[in-house]
Amino acid sequence: MKEIHAARREKLRREMRRCGLDALLISHDANRFYLSGFELHDTQYNDSSGRLVITGDGRDWLATDSRYVAAAARLWDTDRIFECKNQIRDMSALLRHCGTRIGLESHGVSMAFARELGKAGGLFLQAADGLVERLRCVKGPEEIAALETSFALNHKMLTWLEQSLAADGALLSGMREADLAWAVERFFRENGARELAFPVIAATCKNSALPHAPPGDDRLAEGCHVLVDAGCRVDDYCSDQTRTFWLGEKFGSAWSRFERVYALVREAREAALKKLRPGMTGREAYSLARGVFKRAGVEDAFIHGLGHGIGLETHEAPTLSPHNERPLEVGMVVTVEPGLYYPEWGGVRLEYTVALEENGARIL
Amino acid sequence: MKEIHAARREKLRREMRRCGLDALLISHDANRFYLSGFELHDTQYNDSSGRLVITGDGRDWLATDSRYVAAAARLWDTDRIFECKNQIRDMSALLRHCGTRIGLESHGVSMAFARELGKAGGLFLQAADGLVERLRCVKGPEEIAALETSFALNHKMLTWLEQSLAADGALLSGMREADLAWAVERFFRENGARELAFPVIAATCKNSALPHAPPGDDRLAEGCHVLVDAGCRVDDYCSDQTRTFWLGEKFGSAWSRFERVYALVREAREAALKKLRPGMTGREAYSLARGVFKRAGVEDAFIHGLGHGIGLETHEAPTLSPHNERPLEVGMVVTVEPGLYYPEWGGVRLEYTVALEENGARIL
Repeated sequence: MKEIHAARREKLRREMRRCGLDALLISHDANRFYLSGFELHDTQYNDSSGRLVITGDGRDWLATDSRYVAAAARLWDTDRIFECKNQIRDMSALLRHCGTRIGLESHGVSMAFARELGKAGGLFLQAADGLVERLRCVKGPEEIAALETSFALNHKMLTWLEQSLAADGALLSGMREADLAWAVERFFRENGARELAFPVIAATCKNSALPHAPPGDDRLAEGCHVLVDAGCRVDDYCSDQTRTFWLGEKFGSAWSRFERVYALVREAREAALKKLRPGMTGREAYSLARGVFKRAGVEDAFIHGLGHGIGLETHEAPTLSPHNERPLEVGMVVTVEPGLYYPEWGGVRLEYTVALEENGARIL
Repeated sequence: MKEIHAARREKLRREMRRCGLDALLISHDANRFYLSGFELHDTQYNDSSGRLVITGDGRDWLATDSRYVAAAARLWDTDRIFECKNQIRDMSALLRHCGTRIGLESHGVSMAFARELGKAGGLFLQAADGLVERLRCVKGPEEIAALETSFALNHKMLTWLEQSLAADGALLSGMREADLAWAVERFFRENGARELAFPVIAATCKNSALPHAPPGDDRLAEGCHVLVDAGCRVDDYCSDQTRTFWLGEKFGSAWSRFERVYALVREAREAALKKLRPGMTGREAYSLARGVFKRAGVEDAFIHGLGHGIGLETHEAPTLSPHNERPLEVGMVVTVEPGLYYPEWGGVRLEYTVALEENGARIL
């Protein structure tokens, strides 16, 4: 991986030079990990485990503090590890040593950090967002391989869940949402996941109308449905899939309503999967699903984008939303997750993730 | 809890008025939850589930987007939920409606957000950090009760772990660090924790010299030690404790070195626990442990602060470090976690958490 990280930094350096930057300060944890392999997560609020300084001359720095110096020395040239005792004073000294015109991630640093660094003087600080994100959104073969491993486990979990339901329709009935979420998490962890990609969503009945419902004490019951949106992290890469299951026998008005909503969401998903391809914009991709809902007169119940990029983070560039006018490219990996939500009744969401290839979208 | 949240906002409003603010924008997730009960976690990078606007007239707003409106309506007056379609444009309109002089958390918003909000015009934006954190660091009785529940489970886990070791010294020998971390996590989750407070640290031999070691494939072995630093979240509140265990028979030079280091760390912990009390500064508290290490000539191996506040977050104010000149107060809850670290050998850390009371520190 050391060579891959170095190659990514060279690509970034070319972009940096195009922007006229002497150096680029990398603070966002996933960007830092992508470029160095150092610490994928900053787990505490306002506590960075380290920052990279990508320099014009190619002799990049990893700046960290005493808690992480030994960890850094395991994967970074010790001569280029810079130990900060004071985040602002020492960091600004290091940056001045690297040049004057310094790029930073304006979405990845706090207003306070940017201000104090500015006050320290001698630097021309410039927002330089998206440089690493644009590299990251087109996945290399080693990343596609990791994503495939992560999604293989995700499919394995869903097969297990569907089989449990098929074997005994009443099996999950009576279980609390929180218990189901934990069963899913255990399955992931005991089958090779290092951690969850995001907290499991297991939402029944009305709760499923909340796209980000935290699992609670409500119990699964026959004659209602349950939405499961779950992802694991394997080989550092995230997976993300959603299914919505009907519980119990399939008859009656509750079932009919579910069946109608489900059929529409599935139609929207299939339309998007079939037509999604490189060259179309994020907005055009979004419209594939939105169009289906619009024709059925239910577009107001589709309250989020169609999907998002996924990789080292569950949510990353690009988005499939009305706000994204950039064309999609070969090598991008995005979720396709239409849903319809009715606060008084519940919601249905169905989600696959696809890799964009020359001819279209391949489901991971 | 609705009344408790309202009472906290009233306290905050008094502080706000003292600072001459028309309104205060709350973006940091734990602060938002403390004041409203709405969404404890923003789980994705650069994706807020909502912000509070604390107003001068007491009619506060919860600003969120379509994904969270239904969740917000479950706990907030629907007339005071403001749905943002565009984070900057809609948020700045709402703020202008609330006044001109607006406080924001400069550590809790990105440089980009602050900049764009400033550009939208009509507002005088002012850094107003620490107002909520200062309220949060002195815990109310309902918070102490939640912390006690969380620490009770943490002690239960440690008792189980110690008994497992005592019952069969070789039990854990041969286990990977990652397996031990997962066993601890399972214990927490299956005994009432909603989630971990932070990723479990289980580090053996040299790895224990990294204060934030991610558990890996190294196996526990007799004749070495393992450091376990773990915390769970129960009733929304975090716990955090560390122990370091020797594995195998207690003889030989490896054991002697461990015993010497362990005795010093325990002495530092006991000195701090005994003398810690309200009125002393964070720096003075830190010196209690540092003094023990200094007298033994090993202070360079003590590479972090003595402790940190804990509550809704694992790391919050106040810190017990040389940089904190503020006096500690009754009702504060802080960790006491001295450690000594030698990259070529390993580390020992021992941690209790205490509530500060009139006469001193009570171990939770």
